[in-house]
Amino acid sequence: MAARAGRPLSELAAHVGGEVWGDASIAIAGVNGLAEAKPDELSFYGSPRYKRQLLETRAAAVLITADAPRREGVAYVKVGNPHLAFARISALFHPRPTFRPGVSAGAQVHPQAIVHPQATVMAGATVERGAQVGARTALFPGVYLGEQAVVGEDCTLYPNVTVRERCVVGSRVTLHASCVVGADGFGFALDLEVPEHVKVPQAGIARIEDDVELGACTCVDRATTGETVIGRGSKVDNLVQIAHNVRVGPMSLLCAQAGVSGSTELGAGVVLAGQVGVVGHIRIGDMAKIGAQSGVAQDVPDGAVMSGSPAFDHKRWLRSSVEFERLSELSREVRQLRRRLEALEKSREESGR
Amino acid sequence: MAARAGRPLSELAAHVGGEVWGDASIAIAGVNGLAEAKPDELSFYGSPRYKRQLLETRAAAVLITADAPRREGVAYVKVGNPHLAFARISALFHPRPTFRPGVSAGAQVHPQAIVHPQATVMAGATVERGAQVGARTALFPGVYLGEQAVVGEDCTLYPNVTVRERCVVGSRVTLHASCVVGADGFGFALDLEVPEHVKVPQAGIARIEDDVELGACTCVDRATTGETVIGRGSKVDNLVQIAHNVRVGPMSLLCAQAGVSGSTELGAGVVLAGQVGVVGHIRIGDMAKIGAQSGVAQDVPDGAVMSGSPAFDHKRWLRSSVEFERLSELSREVRQLRRRLEALEKSREESGR
Amino acid sequence: MAARAGRPLSELAAHVGGEVWGDASIAIAGVNGLAEAKPDELSFYGSPRYKRQLLETRAAAVLITADAPRREGVAYVKVGNPHLAFARISALFHPRPTFRPGVSAGAQVHPQAIVHPQATVMAGATVERGAQVGARTALFPGVYLGEQAVVGEDCTLYPNVTVRERCVVGSRVTLHASCVVGADGFGFALDLEVPEHVKVPQAGIARIEDDVELGACTCVDRATTGETVIGRGSKVDNLVQIAHNVRVGPMSLLCAQAGVSGSTELGAGVVLAGQVGVVGHIRIGDMAKIGAQSGVAQDVPDGAVMSGSPAFDHKRWLRSSVEFERLSELSREVRQLRRRLEALEKSREESGR
Repeated sequence: MAARAGRPLSELAAHVGGEVWGDASIAIAGVNGLAEAKPDELSFYGSPRYKRQLLETRAAAVLITADAPRREGVAYVKVGNPHLAFARISALFHPRPTFRPGVSAGAQVHPQAIVHPQATVMAGATVERGAQVGARTALFPGVYLGEQAVVGEDCTLYPNVTVRERCVVGSRVTLHASCVVGADGFGFALDLEVPEHVKVPQAGIARIEDDVELGACTCVDRATTGETVIGRGSKVDNLVQIAHNVRVGPMSLLCAQAGVSGSTELGAGVVLAGQVGVVGHIRIGDMAKIGAQSGVAQDVPDGAVMSGSPAFDHKRWLRSSVEFERLSELSREVRQLRRRLEALEKSREESGR
Repeated sequence: MAARAGRPLSELAAHVGGEVWGDASIAIAGVNGLAEAKPDELSFYGSPRYKRQLLETRAAAVLITADAPRREGVAYVKVGNPHLAFARISALFHPRPTFRPGVSAGAQVHPQAIVHPQATVMAGATVERGAQVGARTALFPGVYLGEQAVVGEDCTLYPNVTVRERCVVGSRVTLHASCVVGADGFGFALDLEVPEHVKVPQAGIARIEDDVELGACTCVDRATTGETVIGRGSKVDNLVQIAHNVRVGPMSLLCAQAGVSGSTELGAGVVLAGQVGVVGHIRIGDMAKIGAQSGVAQDVPDGAVMSGSPAFDHKRWLRSSVEFERLSELSREVRQLRRRLEALEKSREESGR
Repeated sequence: MAARAGRPLSELAAHVGGEVWGDASIAIAGVNGLAEAKPDELSFYGSPRYKRQLLETRAAAVLITADAPRREGVAYVKVGNPHLAFARISALFHPRPTFRPGVSAGAQVHPQAIVHPQATVMAGATVERGAQVGARTALFPGVYLGEQAVVGEDCTLYPNVTVRERCVVGSRVTLHASCVVGADGFGFALDLEVPEHVKVPQAGIARIEDDVELGACTCVDRATTGETVIGRGSKVDNLVQIAHNVRVGPMSLLCAQAGVSGSTELGAGVVLAGQVGVVGHIRIGDMAKIGAQSGVAQDVPDGAVMSGSPAFDHKRWLRSSVEFERLSELSREVRQLRRRLEALEKSREESGR
């Protein structure tokens, strides 16, 4: 491999407030995982799970905590949080791409839309009447902004994203490909006489606050009335469903394929693991964590850790799950106990005669 | 807030056959939830869960049932089904938008496609050879209609919807953004000798009947041979999977992230709650209801209410779920009973000597 | 029904190495299911579940195994694997469509993209700088190929598919509508001091190997560093989530709505049934099978069959599930045993005095 231009390790360490153990003058050309790192790359050690890779890595330097094992021939940068430091250093090597400002001739932008001169609207994107696009925001091909939809500054809307009419997207928001903001909520009222599911107009909007990221094919429905809200700094993975009138607090993390039903509120810093389902009209408290595939059926207090479907305390759920695996044996044992008890009872009865 | 033009409450009440308690002459400017309603808006009281909001609402008028609490200064409209009445009145304030008829210069419409002069085909939509689009139907940007696909009247196909070749969409159908009708079913036959998963051609179609609504990123696969059918008036939420050759009866409701495997039949008025999974080749009877996250592994009789994975009677499932939460204690108790029983047995044995 | 031109049954039987029982000279005009087959069509009998349909079919001929029941007036073709033979014969009647080669005037192809002259780029598709499209590959409207993305030969990318920058798609790959290859993985590091979820740049790629099929709205994220890989010949259904740095071995089958978390490895020939979830950083062994809706939380050995959430041995899970259904009765029985035991103990105590 040809030598690549790099940045001095000392500079990278300073960027994250880390202390160098070893040669701080070496040039780092990129970042990589421990197992894949090349001899001019920096990696990080985030979990004891990867101890073997740490000891075998070809990386020039590794971000570690103070207690991590070290060996000769590798430089180390001691930091409080190696994963966080890795994120910040990787961002130096992989800055957010910039796009040539302007509206492509192949884009469909309504004359009454307001597109900032520093925004990028690529061919095949559509901006409807009254919609607004902020500075340095990029709309990829196939993006659709409905009438009076507003997108702030420094956003990236990847291909085939739909933002329906009047919805609001803040600044520094990333919407991944084919994600849908502001589709109609699922609201119908049954008219038994016809019979017919009568549509309840979904007249509200969806609001995506600053610094949010929504994954590919994730859907955030517009509210029946009022707003569906994804709070500031929350990150939502792919294929997640957010129903009408849900409010997700700031700084929450919703993993892939999770779903939140209508009018439910998630507090700040909530974590929903993958494939979690949450019923409607409840509240999940601040900093609560819900385990993968759990089904939350009632209010969750602040800070609670829950699992199961229906969900309850995570530690209890772990114990119940262990027992579930041997439930057949437990049942057999109960049958045996009954027979032995019956034998004792009979014997008692006979001796009592 | 400036006064908005409104409609007399008497007129709205008459529209839903309701009886006004209070001043029927007041002007209603819009509809809203109880908590958000402004002093010129109408709301509804659909569940005792919202009793506090009912008593505190600023709404000018509220749709209620006869037994709901009332207070001074608010007008009420007594109806049999407040949610249904709200849907109908909201529709007066939020009629389905109309679109300027015609084919945009930026649309790709094949010369042998048949687009009704009152249909709207927006820039960036594609209509392939032999495809048909009915009157007053709107195709948003990014919509794709494959060869000989047919879409009826008064439909809305939101951005980036795909309807593959030969599929049939009825009238008054709404397809939300990025929903996919007629992708190939998941059919492969294993040839162990190569080895290779040999594709089974998916030569059938998907048929979406009248008055159906399909959510964003929902997928209805085409049949291997014959048809996959979503029956008249059924409503399907976001991110739902309908496999090849499934038949969903009329008037069913499929909530977000539910999935139905191949060749399964759902009867009329079936409800699948969120994240339900249904295996292939079974039948779910008319009016059956399946609880959230359940996994249905065998036929379900008409009218049954089922939960769990695998699913069984909902009430039994509730009881089992309660016990599951204390399963560790149950197991411990069985161990204790065994020890006590052994002690008794031993004592008996000794006394019997 | 007017007679259709057909192919002699003898020719079809020879194509799959089958032996004809009955009139090998009859003309077969198409293929269909047993229940739907017309009198000039061929069908197959793949499971005893469909014995009634086999006996009642109007098909001219049926692919069967040696032990299947037969009747007068129908021709049979004896084969080792009727479903596989059906797939191969159906492919004769339904060859992969070919598309007129060339770049449509309505497509956006960067001058520095490399599109094979036999490839088809339809109007509304985008091919960015440095991207490559192989021979006989078709890009439907709304397809987006990012910078330096590579797609091999004989691929079909259905409408609104996104392949992000630098990702690699092999040959004979099918990407169904709205599927997303190479969206950013879900990687953030928490900076508690701000607080802020700091994005970890997702600098790797996704690689889709030869003969893979990805379903509609399925998402395969790009790697943080390195590659996310879907191995040769694997088939992935709709709405599946594949996280960053996952490696799916060759010949695996992932059913609809399954999800695999970051850095997990699936071996060769793995089967994930519908709605399965797999945690990150584990390995699922070759030929392992995971039952529907299961949640895999730890390594799975080669060939294992697992179910449940968390998943364990499938047969044990079946037994536990049976017991779960009667868990309330089991709990009641334990309470009764305790009472009877207490009575015995008391009686013993009294008699011991």
